[in-house]
Amino acid sequence: MTGIQEEKETGRLEAFSDGVFAIAITLLVLEIKAPSHESVQQHGLAHLLAALWPSYLAFFTSFITILVMWVNHHHIFTLIRRSDHAFLYLNGLLLFLVTFVPFPTSLLAEFLLDPDGKVAANLYTGTFLAISFAFNLLWRYAAKGKRLLAAGAKREEVDQISKLGRTGFPLYLAAFGASFVSESASIGICLLLALYFALRGWPIKT
Amino acid sequence: MTGIQEEKETGRLEAFSDGVFAIAITLLVLEIKAPSHESVQQHGLAHLLAALWPSYLAFFTSFITILVMWVNHHHIFTLIRRSDHAFLYLNGLLLFLVTFVPFPTSLLAEFLLDPDGKVAANLYTGTFLAISFAFNLLWRYAAKGKRLLAAGAKREEVDQISKLGRTGFPLYLAAFGASFVSESASIGICLLLALYFALRGWPIKT
Amino acid sequence: MTGIQEEKETGRLEAFSDGVFAIAITLLVLEIKAPSHESVQQHGLAHLLAALWPSYLAFFTSFITILVMWVNHHHIFTLIRRSDHAFLYLNGLLLFLVTFVPFPTSLLAEFLLDPDGKVAANLYTGTFLAISFAFNLLWRYAAKGKRLLAAGAKREEVDQISKLGRTGFPLYLAAFGASFVSESASIGICLLLALYFALRGWPIKT
Amino acid sequence: MTGIQEEKETGRLEAFSDGVFAIAITLLVLEIKAPSHESVQQHGLAHLLAALWPSYLAFFTSFITILVMWVNHHHIFTLIRRSDHAFLYLNGLLLFLVTFVPFPTSLLAEFLLDPDGKVAANLYTGTFLAISFAFNLLWRYAAKGKRLLAAGAKREEVDQISKLGRTGFPLYLAAFGASFVSESASIGICLLLALYFALRGWPIKT
Repeated sequence: MTGIQEEKETGRLEAFSDGVFAIAITLLVLEIKAPSHESVQQHGLAHLLAALWPSYLAFFTSFITILVMWVNHHHIFTLIRRSDHAFLYLNGLLLFLVTFVPFPTSLLAEFLLDPDGKVAANLYTGTFLAISFAFNLLWRYAAKGKRLLAAGAKREEVDQISKLGRTGFPLYLAAFGASFVSESASIGICLLLALYFALRGWPIKT
Repeated sequence: MTGIQEEKETGRLEAFSDGVFAIAITLLVLEIKAPSHESVQQHGLAHLLAALWPSYLAFFTSFITILVMWVNHHHIFTLIRRSDHAFLYLNGLLLFLVTFVPFPTSLLAEFLLDPDGKVAANLYTGTFLAISFAFNLLWRYAAKGKRLLAAGAKREEVDQISKLGRTGFPLYLAAFGASFVSESASIGICLLLALYFALRGWPIKT
Repeated sequence: MTGIQEEKETGRLEAFSDGVFAIAITLLVLEIKAPSHESVQQHGLAHLLAALWPSYLAFFTSFITILVMWVNHHHIFTLIRRSDHAFLYLNGLLLFLVTFVPFPTSLLAEFLLDPDGKVAANLYTGTFLAISFAFNLLWRYAAKGKRLLAAGAKREEVDQISKLGRTGFPLYLAAFGASFVSESASIGICLLLALYFALRGWPIKT
Repeated sequence: MTGIQEEKETGRLEAFSDGVFAIAITLLVLEIKAPSHESVQQHGLAHLLAALWPSYLAFFTSFITILVMWVNHHHIFTLIRRSDHAFLYLNGLLLFLVTFVPFPTSLLAEFLLDPDGKVAANLYTGTFLAISFAFNLLWRYAAKGKRLLAAGAKREEVDQISKLGRTGFPLYLAAFGASFVSESASIGICLLLALYFALRGWPIKT
């Protein structure tokens, strides 16, 4: 297989992944349900919109988390030059989990204030934990012995991505654990994690 | 980082953004709700379709506004050559607000003729105001000292985009202010603004 | 503006348009509503799925029509080399109508067998008529004096596309007219038109 | 038509197909319906989420099947260099069936445990059978006498793809046949088939 074909193949994989990320992130808004005419007549629209805050919180947290994941994906693929069969399906596992996000997001929006809110938070943080796990798997497969990396990829940069993955996973595990104690705390950790990854920037490139 | 890698990175950012714009603009139609069989038997389909005019107005206004935003985004990116971490997230903020648009659009469609229509108009115009603000932020960050611009970008063109942003923001602020007085007037301003930006063309390129 | 920038601009316009076409065509399936558990217990799933045939007909007709439109768009853009402000918004008008298609499709699926089925057929065929009109507008603007065409575009090919547009419009006008007399006949014309355009191929390229 | 234009045309066809695959695969999650507040108060969220397992099964099976189809499509297009009118519409037929998948998926999720579950399984496996058929059609058309293939495509690789198609079709036929006897068995075959195709890799490239 020539170098040109390889480039083309990775390009289509990135484009397909981008499509899935972009659609999943845009579908999130469908989980914010407009109040009914009856309830608006009773309580007023302003009041009901304010009461939808768990929906906004879930929407924002999921949006920023998916965005951070996309930026990571984007960053990782600047170092990846080749694709193989296993890599396609490890990427598929990641995309599977990303497309699932709107479901726990809608559960969290709906049931955060419910006595059963912890169950919604379990699934929500558990989904992010699984995504973090899939990301580690994907990166380790690609990076092991520079299997799929560009020849010129710097060891320092590769190591820092690996380290980022090793840091992220236990933090999401902590969020998952916290969801059994306090749903608010667990969502707070997810939100802080996403903001932290968004704001700190990548170690080398900044 | 080589010039080729930079080009590729901006390309993927544009593709992701295009995906989000395209999906958000296409999801708008889902907010037009078909009438039920019962109400059709009572009032007739033609009558009920005519009564859906607030939905069409909200659909059309949001569509043309997002389209204008996409054209702006498209135009700005012809001048941008580099991306960095902060820029990725400023673009993310813009996309966040764009994906949110279907929600206030559905509220406006549903409640424009309701006594609480002003609240829907507040959120609707407020969302556009926030988008206008995010656009200014994105552009200023990129354009400051030509941080991310092509070396050959003409000062005149850069200044005119900056000026456009400085003009758009107070006009959307006016629409937001008007929404507290008259919901129809505020929607009218948004529609006129989008049509104006669509029809006037870009200062230099025409 | 250099030739390379021009190519890039048209590329992003095509990508955005492709996104909108792809999303609109994929959202159509959401208009096929699964029957409820109650009705399945009463009538059986097989019976109810068979009774959904207006949904399948509307889904299939809209799918193939949007696909034909996309192939046309695709074909036209092989001849177009430049873009300008007016062209962006003429293309935007076309996309606006394409994103609208799921709504009349759902109305047709829901009300084809209703006494008010003609109203649904009016809107359905009227939407396709409007799309045909927008296509003519877009092409004429681009082709007039070869304004936006490649220098090497053959007159014969340009003329045949223009002729195709001039043929399609009165046929969709006939479908629209027929919808006031017989909803089935008008849908039949739309379906035959789409199949005809799909099967005949392009005059020169085959 | 020059080689560069041909490349560009296939590129846009792939991009459009990728968009449709990506959207169809991401829409699947919308078929998992969150339980209502009333039922959660009665039965508890954890219990209801566990009872949604047919939804997860249908979601996972459809996701992995569409992903395998996309990988196949991707693989086939690395060998295809040209496109023609018939090929565009054979690809369109494939995309039509792919966009249809969310509907039988939602039926299966909803009615798998219903006395009428077999009907849902008929449609579900029947859809995959039709997709397998369309894939064979598409590939045979492209590969016949290397009609649309790259001049350098190896006979061995071409033959192995043809063989894969000839193997897949009777297996999906078996799943369809099984759906008349046992819905669980037929879903199991679909899931195993997708996992098998996902895990075995492509004959030559691995």
